[in-house]
Amino acid sequence: MKKLINGVDAVVTDALRGIAAAHPSLRVDVENKVVFRAQAPRPGKVGLVSGGGSGHEPLHAGFVGYGMLDAACPGEVFTSPVPDQLIEATKGADGGAGVLHIVKNYTGDVLNFEMAAELSGDEGVEVASVLVNDDVAVQDSLYTAGRRGTGATLFVEKIAGALAETGAPLAEVARVAKEVNDRSRSFGVALTPSTVPAAGKPTFELGDTEIELGIGIHGEPGRTRAPHREAREIARIAMDAINDDLPLSGETLVLVNGMGGTPLLELYIVFAEVAAYLAEKGATPVRSLVGNYVTSLDMQGFSVTTCSLTDELTRLWDAPVETPALRWGR
Amino acid sequence: MKKLINGVDAVVTDALRGIAAAHPSLRVDVENKVVFRAQAPRPGKVGLVSGGGSGHEPLHAGFVGYGMLDAACPGEVFTSPVPDQLIEATKGADGGAGVLHIVKNYTGDVLNFEMAAELSGDEGVEVASVLVNDDVAVQDSLYTAGRRGTGATLFVEKIAGALAETGAPLAEVARVAKEVNDRSRSFGVALTPSTVPAAGKPTFELGDTEIELGIGIHGEPGRTRAPHREAREIARIAMDAINDDLPLSGETLVLVNGMGGTPLLELYIVFAEVAAYLAEKGATPVRSLVGNYVTSLDMQGFSVTTCSLTDELTRLWDAPVETPALRWGR
Repeated sequence: MKKLINGVDAVVTDALRGIAAAHPSLRVDVENKVVFRAQAPRPGKVGLVSGGGSGHEPLHAGFVGYGMLDAACPGEVFTSPVPDQLIEATKGADGGAGVLHIVKNYTGDVLNFEMAAELSGDEGVEVASVLVNDDVAVQDSLYTAGRRGTGATLFVEKIAGALAETGAPLAEVARVAKEVNDRSRSFGVALTPSTVPAAGKPTFELGDTEIELGIGIHGEPGRTRAPHREAREIARIAMDAINDDLPLSGETLVLVNGMGGTPLLELYIVFAEVAAYLAEKGATPVRSLVGNYVTSLDMQGFSVTTCSLTDELTRLWDAPVETPALRWGR
Repeated sequence: MKKLINGVDAVVTDALRGIAAAHPSLRVDVENKVVFRAQAPRPGKVGLVSGGGSGHEPLHAGFVGYGMLDAACPGEVFTSPVPDQLIEATKGADGGAGVLHIVKNYTGDVLNFEMAAELSGDEGVEVASVLVNDDVAVQDSLYTAGRRGTGATLFVEKIAGALAETGAPLAEVARVAKEVNDRSRSFGVALTPSTVPAAGKPTFELGDTEIELGIGIHGEPGRTRAPHREAREIARIAMDAINDDLPLSGETLVLVNGMGGTPLLELYIVFAEVAAYLAEKGATPVRSLVGNYVTSLDMQGFSVTTCSLTDELTRLWDAPVETPALRWGR
């Protein structure tokens, strides 16, 4: 295993030191492992808090800033953040209007966020939660009861974040967050496994001519192994899975997401196929992102996430955002 | 070789179709392989044109847009764009105030840009050129006489692009572009090789515990092979090489760039070490980028680029930019 680290125990804290040094717009509590906006909390604004295992960067710390999250909690690699971290983040993000927890559906994350919500509530912070479970690949899996939360997390954080910025109340922000999740679907494909530093070896084995269809972001098994094939066919498999679950139509927000080790050149090739597929179905990718947003360490592969837009969601997507990984319009 | 492609001959055109579908702000001439701003040329503005082999995305097409390039020409993977492409781009980017060619120092690129400049000149377009040669690792190499052009290309494109946007004349834009290059230095490290689709095998061999110090963006050999070690030590080797060539001091723009296959988590760990090194030297990373900007397909590794800032360069760096890969402030 060759990785740019100083030791497997220091991975998350060393990365947090780097985030702090690179982004003066953030305040990084390295000891408690919480990344805040430098100015958090903003009085009267609903606070948005997310978190999850490390190894999926820029998710979540890269989405802290104006128009998105107020705080993010990175757990150890592929490991849920602990309740203490989440409580620290929740209290630090509360400007008196309550806090929305954005939780990817993994068993550990769900339990720890629930505990943090309860304990923060005891300390007087009103907390609402939205569960992200957009991955159509499998019903239950290694870390999850029910569907996994993957690429739609970015959509939820961006759109709910934009609404929170307008001063909307907690119930409204939670409502739009849930709506985004309900209208979003994802499917992922792995060409290679990732390697967790502390494990020192790949999370699974994949043959030289095999791919894993429906992969999870921790390398959890998908639907099936299959022979590697042209990008066109692989994209079609992913899009069919999404379309079978929620038929594609109308104005659509699309993310073609790299798993961390895939060249951007290839992601654009996939995007071309995704756009062609959408056109066949009468759907239009009116907004899109192509790049590494919800990664799985060094895994090669991609995921596609779609969200069926409404006028409100498009307006909130277009609203200004200023985070390390997503910036526009201000 | 597992890649998300439809065939080795279609890589660049398929990716261009994806770029066209993803970015309505661009006009993509797939046949001639030129990526323009949708509104190019802008009358009275100096046009900026760059280009180079594909496989380094988002460089260059991802930097086409307001505040940066007017047009980019992707060659085949790791292969210079041809003069016809460059002429097409130059003519299409000329708003009557002339065109600046931003050329990375590789023999093929230099020759083809020179020919395109001459032939465009014959057709009445005034062309100036700036050569980017920031890589301190080696003096000559596989594709280059003199130093290679790498990460500083992004700095040159951003800063010269911002000046061009103000209506500055060609000689001024060329002057600032050259100044950015003169004040910039880079050094790269590979943990793994990349694989060119048409070749189907890695560009070089690297042992399980070896790294290549001073790697080029096409996998050209660097200074030396060395045993893999902690991020802290690797970052120090890179920074020493830069500092030996141009002592670091004062306000500095820093890019910690992923080679395409490196997790962002690890790039932040490297950034923390780079920031610590700069502090030792009395330099301050007042502006920075961490991520995949000048890549080498799926290579794992990173490069560091520094640029010693002046007030003018900082102001131009901060100016609004709106491209697929770099956006802020508008």
